[in-house]
Amino acid sequence: MLNFEINNPTHIIFGKDQLDKLPAYISKFYPGKKILLAYGGGSIEKTGLLERVKAQLNDFELVLFPGIEANPQFTTLMKAAELIRRENIGFILAVGGGSVIDGVKFISGAVNYQGDPWDVLLRKPGCVFGDALPFGTILTIPATGSEANSGAVISRSEIHEKRTMGGPQFFPKFSFLDPTVVATLPKRQVANGIVDAYMHTLEQYLTFPTDNLLQERQAEAILSTLIEIAPAVYENPANYTAAANLMWCAIHALNGNLRCGVPTDWATHMIGHELTAFFGIDHARTLAIIAPRLYEALFDKKKEKLVQYGKRVWQLSGDETAIAQEAIAKTEAFFQSLGMETRISAYTDEFAGIERKIRQRFEERSWKLGEHKDLGYDEVERIVKAAI
Amino acid sequence: MLNFEINNPTHIIFGKDQLDKLPAYISKFYPGKKILLAYGGGSIEKTGLLERVKAQLNDFELVLFPGIEANPQFTTLMKAAELIRRENIGFILAVGGGSVIDGVKFISGAVNYQGDPWDVLLRKPGCVFGDALPFGTILTIPATGSEANSGAVISRSEIHEKRTMGGPQFFPKFSFLDPTVVATLPKRQVANGIVDAYMHTLEQYLTFPTDNLLQERQAEAILSTLIEIAPAVYENPANYTAAANLMWCAIHALNGNLRCGVPTDWATHMIGHELTAFFGIDHARTLAIIAPRLYEALFDKKKEKLVQYGKRVWQLSGDETAIAQEAIAKTEAFFQSLGMETRISAYTDEFAGIERKIRQRFEERSWKLGEHKDLGYDEVERIVKAAI
Repeated sequence: MLNFEINNPTHIIFGKDQLDKLPAYISKFYPGKKILLAYGGGSIEKTGLLERVKAQLNDFELVLFPGIEANPQFTTLMKAAELIRRENIGFILAVGGGSVIDGVKFISGAVNYQGDPWDVLLRKPGCVFGDALPFGTILTIPATGSEANSGAVISRSEIHEKRTMGGPQFFPKFSFLDPTVVATLPKRQVANGIVDAYMHTLEQYLTFPTDNLLQERQAEAILSTLIEIAPAVYENPANYTAAANLMWCAIHALNGNLRCGVPTDWATHMIGHELTAFFGIDHARTLAIIAPRLYEALFDKKKEKLVQYGKRVWQLSGDETAIAQEAIAKTEAFFQSLGMETRISAYTDEFAGIERKIRQRFEERSWKLGEHKDLGYDEVERIVKAAI
Repeated sequence: MLNFEINNPTHIIFGKDQLDKLPAYISKFYPGKKILLAYGGGSIEKTGLLERVKAQLNDFELVLFPGIEANPQFTTLMKAAELIRRENIGFILAVGGGSVIDGVKFISGAVNYQGDPWDVLLRKPGCVFGDALPFGTILTIPATGSEANSGAVISRSEIHEKRTMGGPQFFPKFSFLDPTVVATLPKRQVANGIVDAYMHTLEQYLTFPTDNLLQERQAEAILSTLIEIAPAVYENPANYTAAANLMWCAIHALNGNLRCGVPTDWATHMIGHELTAFFGIDHARTLAIIAPRLYEALFDKKKEKLVQYGKRVWQLSGDETAIAQEAIAKTEAFFQSLGMETRISAYTDEFAGIERKIRQRFEERSWKLGEHKDLGYDEVERIVKAAI
């Protein structure tokens, strides 16, 4: 077990009909009254959630900031930071999914940053966010786990960039998780959420066998639960039990616990981010496209863990090579069972040369990824090409 | 899934050779310099841990408070509270196992309590602890999970009382967990730690089947890991991998996560506490004594979950009644494999009438325990009698 540190201070309020606790939680972390209410498009207006949130906040002065996009955009978020400074706001309430919450994390750091916050995302030397404005979340899409971690992914579509950020100051102070919100989601987003949580888990698990016995079983617990509940919640997002389990799995897939003491991969995510940056493909779908091809390309390095995964999660038995191959096939079939295409060409006709473009991005940034930090540029090119 | 809230702000620093981080963590939570260093007997002096801790704290003024016993005693702890007030100390560092850490939680609440802190433990109306003095821990025995939760158990041996306390103000600010400390423990304490973590998990799991699919699998992950590593760490406490897994299991068994949304039992603990109060039997051993008899007495109510436990954790198959019975037998045999007697009469000759005394305690306090809150006094008497 590698040395590690973990601290996750986010307070989770989970279940139905708990929004009446919202004012008390805000007041616990913010003595003032002026709040930025940040959200995405019209979905929380349509479902009535926005009105229900507002109804709880009569004692506060709300400044609305709608319009945070999927793959939240730097330029949009900078407008929110400017608004906060102008209006002297002291707390942000994010109502939305991972994109809104990620966006709010960026805003909370950018507000008081002296200089261009994009430099922080470029990891320019000496450029780091200091204190963040406190914020809480009301989750509307179980998927990214952003509601209970300190990371974010920010996009700048005009230059095809998607960058990560994070730090201990970016944990939400609190997050409200009500599984009934899942009933209002389109199937596409339910599927995205399942695959996102599944792949967050695999990135921290499907490496090589380690002596982290509990962490590996905790990962297998999430994978097995997602497989068990996926058909029910995809078929009927109003299934409360299935939705609640999905929501709780999504948190545990990326709340920091699975990575304790373990080697992690994340190459599927980094390649996938490029597919979103170039083509706007949904994040979860980029993972479903890349993961099976990456596991095939790195079959020998990952074979032992693929066998463990196949046996424990998919209940496979027999020849080990066959188990490892079947585990990849089962994974891809699982994604497809959720209506998800697993080839780039199913999403865009503009795929010519994408394998070289992504290779070039990795080369420019000197990225060496994977659990051995040895994923070569040739391999990246080969994986993307195989995924077309 | 029942509604729940969870928040666990304790910062964990896990692994070898991390003590040089100690001064920075103390300073993060306490601007002053005067610290109470609370510990138990001479074991941390013998192992050299006390000197290693002191060596890191040259910039602080240390006031030593040794002598916190196993089953920490109210009268001892009140002396520490008085010392803190007299010396105007602002932070406590607990170096020890669950007893020392539990004791420090009590001290941290008692310091500023107006009135008799025993009233808080008696749950007298209006008697609650307010703010607690900040404290951190350096764990020496993996077992209770107290290093990462907000509960404590305090004893008053002169009146055969053992009482629980807790509250969000009683989370340690930080806890250092170094698995190499396990190498210095007697086998008896290693066994106690394994059984304690195992029983914390069973109390939150062995109830009835629920729709908390992830939480149940997380519990099974802990149980399976403890079964896997127990022979290795019991045989050789210097086995780092096994010790690290034990340490991490003990945290996860009682860090608040397993109880999220689930019904819990805790009757074994409450009956077990009485055995410690009357006879001074080690806490973990009281659990090993009571649990098998309690599961037998409540066999019908718990049968479905016993079957799930038998299948998933002990890999049993066949007739369900036989699986449930065998699961209890396997559990008891597991405790015995760690050198643990599972009958009261193996620990004391003074057992005559104990079943009636404990029944009376439950009656006096109107305690109704178990996952259905319906554990009757007749059943308590029958369980204790069967355990003699």
